[in-house]
Amino acid sequence: MRALTGQMRVIIQALKPEIDGGRFPIKRTVGENVIVEADIFSDGHEVISALLLYRKEEEPDWQEAAMRPLGNDRWRGSFDVGDLGRYLYTVLAWVDRFKSWRRDLSKRSEAGQQVSSELLVGAQLVAEAAARASEPGQEQLTQWARTLQSSDVTEAARVQVALSQELSELMDRYPDRRFAATYREELAAVVDIDKARFSTWYEMFPRSCTSQPGRHGTFKDCEARLPYIAAMGFDVLYFPPIHPVGHTRRKGRNNSPVAGPDDPGTPWAIGSAEGGHKSVHPQLGTLEDFRSFLAEAHAHGIGIALDIAFQCSPDHPYVQEHPEWFRWRPDNTVQYAENPPKKYEDIYPFEFETDNWRELWGELKSIVLFWIEQGVRIFRVDNPHTKPFRFWEWLIAEIKTSYPDVVFLSEAFTRPKVMYQLAKLGFTQSYTYFAWRNTKQELAHYFTALTQTEVREYFRPNLWPNTPDILTEYLQFGGRPAFIARLVLAATLGANYGIYGPAFELCEDRAREPGSEEYLDSEKYEIRNWDIARPDSLKDLVARVNRIRHDNPALHGDCSLRFHEVDNEQLICYSKRTDDLSNVILTVVNLDPHHTQSGWIEFPLEELGIDPQRPYQMHDLVSDARYLWQGSRNYIELNPQIVPAHIFRMRRRVRTEQDFDYYM
Amino acid sequence: MRALTGQMRVIIQALKPEIDGGRFPIKRTVGENVIVEADIFSDGHEVISALLLYRKEEEPDWQEAAMRPLGNDRWRGSFDVGDLGRYLYTVLAWVDRFKSWRRDLSKRSEAGQQVSSELLVGAQLVAEAAARASEPGQEQLTQWARTLQSSDVTEAARVQVALSQELSELMDRYPDRRFAATYREELAAVVDIDKARFSTWYEMFPRSCTSQPGRHGTFKDCEARLPYIAAMGFDVLYFPPIHPVGHTRRKGRNNSPVAGPDDPGTPWAIGSAEGGHKSVHPQLGTLEDFRSFLAEAHAHGIGIALDIAFQCSPDHPYVQEHPEWFRWRPDNTVQYAENPPKKYEDIYPFEFETDNWRELWGELKSIVLFWIEQGVRIFRVDNPHTKPFRFWEWLIAEIKTSYPDVVFLSEAFTRPKVMYQLAKLGFTQSYTYFAWRNTKQELAHYFTALTQTEVREYFRPNLWPNTPDILTEYLQFGGRPAFIARLVLAATLGANYGIYGPAFELCEDRAREPGSEEYLDSEKYEIRNWDIARPDSLKDLVARVNRIRHDNPALHGDCSLRFHEVDNEQLICYSKRTDDLSNVILTVVNLDPHHTQSGWIEFPLEELGIDPQRPYQMHDLVSDARYLWQGSRNYIELNPQIVPAHIFRMRRRVRTEQDFDYYM
Repeated sequence: MRALTGQMRVIIQALKPEIDGGRFPIKRTVGENVIVEADIFSDGHEVISALLLYRKEEEPDWQEAAMRPLGNDRWRGSFDVGDLGRYLYTVLAWVDRFKSWRRDLSKRSEAGQQVSSELLVGAQLVAEAAARASEPGQEQLTQWARTLQSSDVTEAARVQVALSQELSELMDRYPDRRFAATYREELAAVVDIDKARFSTWYEMFPRSCTSQPGRHGTFKDCEARLPYIAAMGFDVLYFPPIHPVGHTRRKGRNNSPVAGPDDPGTPWAIGSAEGGHKSVHPQLGTLEDFRSFLAEAHAHGIGIALDIAFQCSPDHPYVQEHPEWFRWRPDNTVQYAENPPKKYEDIYPFEFETDNWRELWGELKSIVLFWIEQGVRIFRVDNPHTKPFRFWEWLIAEIKTSYPDVVFLSEAFTRPKVMYQLAKLGFTQSYTYFAWRNTKQELAHYFTALTQTEVREYFRPNLWPNTPDILTEYLQFGGRPAFIARLVLAATLGANYGIYGPAFELCEDRAREPGSEEYLDSEKYEIRNWDIARPDSLKDLVARVNRIRHDNPALHGDCSLRFHEVDNEQLICYSKRTDDLSNVILTVVNLDPHHTQSGWIEFPLEELGIDPQRPYQMHDLVSDARYLWQGSRNYIELNPQIVPAHIFRMRRRVRTEQDFDYYM
Repeated sequence: MRALTGQMRVIIQALKPEIDGGRFPIKRTVGENVIVEADIFSDGHEVISALLLYRKEEEPDWQEAAMRPLGNDRWRGSFDVGDLGRYLYTVLAWVDRFKSWRRDLSKRSEAGQQVSSELLVGAQLVAEAAARASEPGQEQLTQWARTLQSSDVTEAARVQVALSQELSELMDRYPDRRFAATYREELAAVVDIDKARFSTWYEMFPRSCTSQPGRHGTFKDCEARLPYIAAMGFDVLYFPPIHPVGHTRRKGRNNSPVAGPDDPGTPWAIGSAEGGHKSVHPQLGTLEDFRSFLAEAHAHGIGIALDIAFQCSPDHPYVQEHPEWFRWRPDNTVQYAENPPKKYEDIYPFEFETDNWRELWGELKSIVLFWIEQGVRIFRVDNPHTKPFRFWEWLIAEIKTSYPDVVFLSEAFTRPKVMYQLAKLGFTQSYTYFAWRNTKQELAHYFTALTQTEVREYFRPNLWPNTPDILTEYLQFGGRPAFIARLVLAATLGANYGIYGPAFELCEDRAREPGSEEYLDSEKYEIRNWDIARPDSLKDLVARVNRIRHDNPALHGDCSLRFHEVDNEQLICYSKRTDDLSNVILTVVNLDPHHTQSGWIEFPLEELGIDPQRPYQMHDLVSDARYLWQGSRNYIELNPQIVPAHIFRMRRRVRTEQDFDYYM
């Protein structure tokens, strides 16, 4: 006979949210809510009581929240996560003899049955609760127990006491939990900083941020660029690797296999005689310069994201110091990176199957800690899907134990299950397929999957219309309207999004060759100078879109995303809202960069509590125009040569004064 | 750093079938197949090898079956369960360095690259495999390793060896599994006897099986009834409890609260001075008589199912011997069964919350073992949902460890999650809502959920059109056509089904009162005499339907059930098939017992490999009529006054001779 007591009669199952049987935590940000549901039932017909238990992992005592039945044996409760770090949650439930007795007494009494014997049963239950209670409840319960069995009191009066709200509430405080069952697992929720859920990224090559052709940019130049970036409304500035770049087999301009004497090489070929992952490229400045740049960025409200690229140039000090961290071939060369038949001879991957994996893991962790100690809290991780999952799970857990405010963005563009796995095991945010989702159907299908399924519990999308590796066909051939459309889509579909600039706001659309997504004269292989003051720059529009994001809490999360019908395949329409409906944003984008498109959209007024008989105002936050709509069906027309998108804030009529309507 | 080796790079997840994270086993019968799927992937781009591992629980060594990728990181393998008992299964996978090398070599070679250094890498991998291998593989591998690095052999010839099928097959036998990962759980499959999947039940009150009014039937009378039951094609005969019946508060005819002197009481009020759950009602005969009846039934190919009703009459010896197994009220009476305001004063439930639950559980187990020792292997369990789930899980596991051929049918008519839970924890078969699913939509929805979702892995439906407690409105008012329709539905929708007779085949349709599902003059409270020879009996039709079931393997399982379109709401159409399509049964039932109904049905020919341009034969096994159909759309007309159902066997044309077609 199993150790489990035979007296535990309640079953608790199918608890949600639970990722892979509890193997992975869900994610939240500070102040968010966790709604927990479970199937809870027992044998027989008695009444069940159930509690949601939750606590910060390091605190010993559970806090309790009531769970309520939803029907069909499903129960629900919720709790708020107030602090950074990890929370645990589980469910406790028991057969509640007092509540069962109370329900049955009520039925018996209604059926006109004699209940004197039943009242004695109740008296006993109340007396038992009194023994569990503390003062003043104890005295009150003892008194009620006496009343229930008193022959001096009429049966009707005793039934009234038995069914009283007061007795019920006091009994609820001292339940008999001897045979309570708990759910088989304690589940975890990782609570991140707000920025994990809502962030606006700008990627920039620091060596390209000077206006003097040929000069290698410095951290000082980057400092001068900060007001420009802050004015556009970005709160994360992400740099490709800032470390010394290798010389051996360095790539030249446009990925030429042979570098010219002035070619700077790709920053992802990390390490030279000047140092490795804990060093700064001398031409960018010193570590001191970096720290002072960091302080200046923070003063502008901008967090700096560094690139974690765990790979080495052949000149990296690790290659000499730790040959066992690399894969050696029978010809006594180190295995370089490749995707046969392609070769990346300027890059040595680490050999994670090394017997010295513990030392390797430890060193890689020390790199992250080194930059954290300089003040960095955001990391964009390069190709995490080419390093073992168990390594990342360990690394991120180790770091977040001491620094729960750190954000890791997973740069994995690979198969969906691999991308989801990286998110499950700990990455705070993840790149997505957004860049290649162009049609209405593709976008709606993909973002519904990301935001309306279990995926949203662990995978936080970060949407990029472009990156140094990705200049999509749509941007290459769609012109300025395409850039605007993709900007608005990224900024409103994703609470987290970013652009690679200044290429993006300057609408750089020249590819290296037809059919390629590589930029011509890519910054990956050379220093570029950008004329950020060009009059055709999108910087003001970017600033306006980011201001809209900032001002409208509906856009600070992804869970409320809903797509709406439009009778034109080139028009996409969707909304986000706050829970209390005080902020509702409806976005409409013309996906056709060449032609004006129009159509009728269907907007679900009932869900939003809008009277279909009365007009409401749609305020386009892009153009500042205001439209009066009525009913669920309304007309839209978008000319891509003007602006290919509306971002409407819905305003309800709050009052009418002398034929003048006010909207909030 | 966790103990898990950092060198294990493969992830195995989302394994199916898996019930509640592996908490419960799946179910199969001897000889069936288990198809296992899992997400399997690793970091990087290397090739993975994966094996499905399985074994009988008591055998130490795993057997292995290859798994194949299905795309999108999903893999599949399968194994057969040959024996009764419990099997375990899990998945093993690893990054296969040799397969990766072979794939890459092929790509490099196709791209015309120099591969001499690569061949050295391969030689090393083959030499390592040789070290793992036994003769004669070892010698062969050693030789190949030499060839791959031999400068005496041309590179082209060495590439040919490297990519040869022979090398690949031998390497597959000696893989490098040092860093192989296994799935987090070993999952279980319970393998039952065939009858668990395919059985035909007949319920009968043994005390009513005499034709002499007023005389209490005996096991001898039951013996005389066996040829009648066998002729109808039943292979399970289920008896309500056969134990002594209590006297205290015995119920009279039609559930009267006061019994007359001759009233026999309900057999579910178990126990009197004459004995309890291990005794036989003296008027039925002796234990010896029961054993001889059992032998005679087995000789007729009929298994006997006894009723496990764990409850007592007030006269049961347990009440005196083990007062601690019952709930005592403050007025020193035992708590009788009730569902307030209804009272069942002739029944005492056990108090499973007793501190002596271990002794109670042990005694209840001994009851089951007692009847197993008499030769019984099938138990229909009365109201299991009013006893703790953990009790049943323990009891069934204990019994099946020694007697894996035992079948437990759960008689729980309650909320769906409770019914599913009983099936998960071990019940072999389960009653269903079939009796109350009448419309086409209700039937299709319910049986699709039972047979086309995860539910089918653990819940085996047993369909009853009537029981002593259930005379549905449809049967009360539909006349003979209603009985036939429900018979055909039960017998073809469910591989397991049963009827309560002779009430069913004699079309007994009188209810105790309007709106009630209780039979008038129910056998639960009195002895009935049935004229089984009545000319209007459905016994011949029942025999024919059961013969059709017996002869057609498509009807021996439920997983192949598919519903098909008919353009008439009163006609329902569905099919079952064997995996090899050699047996395909299409059933059409007119649900309207009063009117002829006709319509066009859609039959998916493509799935069945039928040429839509050529005719095929539909052989109605009920009427023996044969129809030539062509294409997927065909006409059906059913007159309920003749027979309201077709059970077609589809026959393909096997050959044509001189304008005469043969069908198999």
